[in-house]
Amino acid sequence: MNKNTKILLSEREMPRQWYNIVADMPNKPSPPLDPATRKPISPEALAAVFPMELIRQEMSAERYIDIPDEVLSLYKTFRPSPMHRALNLEKALGTKSRIYYKYEGGNYSGSHKANTAIAQAYYNKKEGIRRITTETGAGQWGSAMSFACNHFGLELLVFMVNVSFQQKPGRKIMMNTYNAKVVPSPSTMTAVGRQILEKYPDSPGSLGIAISEAMEIAVQDPYTKYSLGSVLNHVSLHQTIIGQEALLQMEKTGDYPDVIIGCFGGGSNFSGISFPFIRENIVNGKKTRFVAVEPSSCPKLTKGRFMYDFGDSAGMTPLLPMYTLGHNFIPEKIHAGGLRYHGAGVLVSQLLKDGFVEAKAKMQRECFEAGVFFARNEGILPAPESNYAIAAALDEARQADIEGTSRVILFNLSGHGHMDVTSYERFFADNLPDHEMTQEEVDKFIAGTGLQD
Amino acid sequence: MNKNTKILLSEREMPRQWYNIVADMPNKPSPPLDPATRKPISPEALAAVFPMELIRQEMSAERYIDIPDEVLSLYKTFRPSPMHRALNLEKALGTKSRIYYKYEGGNYSGSHKANTAIAQAYYNKKEGIRRITTETGAGQWGSAMSFACNHFGLELLVFMVNVSFQQKPGRKIMMNTYNAKVVPSPSTMTAVGRQILEKYPDSPGSLGIAISEAMEIAVQDPYTKYSLGSVLNHVSLHQTIIGQEALLQMEKTGDYPDVIIGCFGGGSNFSGISFPFIRENIVNGKKTRFVAVEPSSCPKLTKGRFMYDFGDSAGMTPLLPMYTLGHNFIPEKIHAGGLRYHGAGVLVSQLLKDGFVEAKAKMQRECFEAGVFFARNEGILPAPESNYAIAAALDEARQADIEGTSRVILFNLSGHGHMDVTSYERFFADNLPDHEMTQEEVDKFIAGTGLQD
Repeated sequence: MNKNTKILLSEREMPRQWYNIVADMPNKPSPPLDPATRKPISPEALAAVFPMELIRQEMSAERYIDIPDEVLSLYKTFRPSPMHRALNLEKALGTKSRIYYKYEGGNYSGSHKANTAIAQAYYNKKEGIRRITTETGAGQWGSAMSFACNHFGLELLVFMVNVSFQQKPGRKIMMNTYNAKVVPSPSTMTAVGRQILEKYPDSPGSLGIAISEAMEIAVQDPYTKYSLGSVLNHVSLHQTIIGQEALLQMEKTGDYPDVIIGCFGGGSNFSGISFPFIRENIVNGKKTRFVAVEPSSCPKLTKGRFMYDFGDSAGMTPLLPMYTLGHNFIPEKIHAGGLRYHGAGVLVSQLLKDGFVEAKAKMQRECFEAGVFFARNEGILPAPESNYAIAAALDEARQADIEGTSRVILFNLSGHGHMDVTSYERFFADNLPDHEMTQEEVDKFIAGTGLQD
Repeated sequence: MNKNTKILLSEREMPRQWYNIVADMPNKPSPPLDPATRKPISPEALAAVFPMELIRQEMSAERYIDIPDEVLSLYKTFRPSPMHRALNLEKALGTKSRIYYKYEGGNYSGSHKANTAIAQAYYNKKEGIRRITTETGAGQWGSAMSFACNHFGLELLVFMVNVSFQQKPGRKIMMNTYNAKVVPSPSTMTAVGRQILEKYPDSPGSLGIAISEAMEIAVQDPYTKYSLGSVLNHVSLHQTIIGQEALLQMEKTGDYPDVIIGCFGGGSNFSGISFPFIRENIVNGKKTRFVAVEPSSCPKLTKGRFMYDFGDSAGMTPLLPMYTLGHNFIPEKIHAGGLRYHGAGVLVSQLLKDGFVEAKAKMQRECFEAGVFFARNEGILPAPESNYAIAAALDEARQADIEGTSRVILFNLSGHGHMDVTSYERFFADNLPDHEMTQEEVDKFIAGTGLQD
């Protein structure tokens, strides 16, 4: 009974740099384009939206980027995060595989989002910015950013996707507690929002719309910048602290992962745990598989198209080369609010295209089933988003057993579900719909962009 | 900026024994009495309710009791818990004092209750018990026990105080997720419940009533036992893992606490952090002060009477020598559901009587104010119960500054508030009532017991 179920690092072992996978990618990602000229966008053109240091990171090809002391100091209040060996889960499954998970839900925000929130707030403050605007889906990103902004003395205005605003009122209150202002999106605060509400008064909103609204406000004032919780290169960069810690933790177990799994919305938690291990594949000949898990109702990786598309609904962002469902995509109201984004991070998109990464789509109810099974055996109640990673981890273990082999499986438990219990209530009441988007539906959304080749 | 804000222990440093303060108390606590005979109750008389090993622990005078491997193994999935230096809070206060907190909210249940839940479920299982009944106030205890029972293959039936059942539906769902059955109390399932509902159809319930209901079910079946989340000696015993870890952690800081603070409901989290340090006062001549903080609306320690009283409303428990408001006490509907119990643990009661411990009552709104101040500076959103400890810690820091000195302050952050955000919403809407019980009201409840001398 006294096996080591928790693998810890000391504060001294915590990585001091973020890892930038661009340095090691055989095919570098294509550049973001200016929609007007279709030429690569200049750093200056992004300066209305982001502080210079984040733009530099967005475009950097340096392999390692130092984590500033002020960021490290806040990281240390909750990092290194623990890795667990899921012994009870293994036993309940009766699997011969060994399952590990990295737990990112132990910090103030309850999810991995704190890792980039702190960095983004810090760089904005350092460049004299006074106010940040941002979007949030499930509210994990908004909560993480609210405390980070408050800590560094920045105002924060959050556009929260309306369906999540209704499903998760607790997240709004949490953001308010950290002094942030929260507005359901689409809102009447912006031209974009008013336009959408005029056409669709009952619009549930989408991350794409919320991003448009937040950007519209940001570009109007030189002291206000915009901040994004996923998708972009610098966001994935900040999340690599997860995977770098996990590398050191796996080393302590004597195991090495055959497969690494993360749920996939814009890509930041998947990138965070995967990128340092993908480097091991590229540089040191390791053979780990990487599985990004998305909802069947939002299948950009498995059914979307790799093309240049906007990151937001209104077309205010540069054009990004990525897997997308089309920027006008309006998702079903599933409960994994963090996974309802139409696009995918540029880096993961390129890595998927090049075969370094696999993608898998799963249905909502099977994922909640997996989450409940996990909670009953491992204790921690997972965030609905994390349930997708868990379901895929169970698939891997079962598949290995069928094949008569065993795998070392590592997944990222990106957050806890203590603020998402109503979705579990619906699951128990058999009141959670399953929805699978067809290829035809996807193609229609993509045709609607007018951007496909 | 790189000061050590988090003080960690390795798994190897985790204590392997619980500490029993009875061994070191100059005045031993008086024994529980059989209500019929007014004679000390025999272990056998308790056997209908508790498994023998817990009865043995309840009556033990051994200084240290080994933690079983099966319990240690689950402890290790979330222990040792971190201690934090509250540097940002100190800075915001502008205090010269040094403030530390032990954080017990990082485990699956979100509070310290897991420490005793696991032990109690284990001992019951070991003695062949099949089902447990228990009460819960805020739901932290019920959640902790639900997973623990599920882990060890025991059924669990939870009587949840009705006002909390209404205020915190999320906790019920969480318990259901771990396979527990949850009933709002008073209920029609028991004679006690039916009797109360007949007289008071709108009864908000109380911990005392919920205990009576749980016990009524337990005594009817030899394979069902009852389990209590606070108050009793064996519960406090299990919580001493907190204080023993804190002793080792304080040693690493080079500081030693001048004052230790815990919120106070039945006493388990306060006992947990305090008892190992009280031993240092008794045995090694340390001079730490210990402050138990209760709501002004439930002031058993500051206005209650030290006397023999029942632990439950219906008078099914032995008579316990403790500070009490009378077992018929019906508390105001304040949001710290875990602090609304009429009595106080026997050990803390004796220690308070003997001057080893101080007590302090505080109003609800001031405590939420302190909790919000804490969240904005330290990140973690506290449970409403924990806010009482925070408010008293701020008092200590301010008082030291007024006196021109500095104190080393340690408090127990017993849980996170992610499932209690609606109470914060009410606080922000200025919709949280303050209530101070008068001595006259207390005396009336006590007279109602017919038990005072």
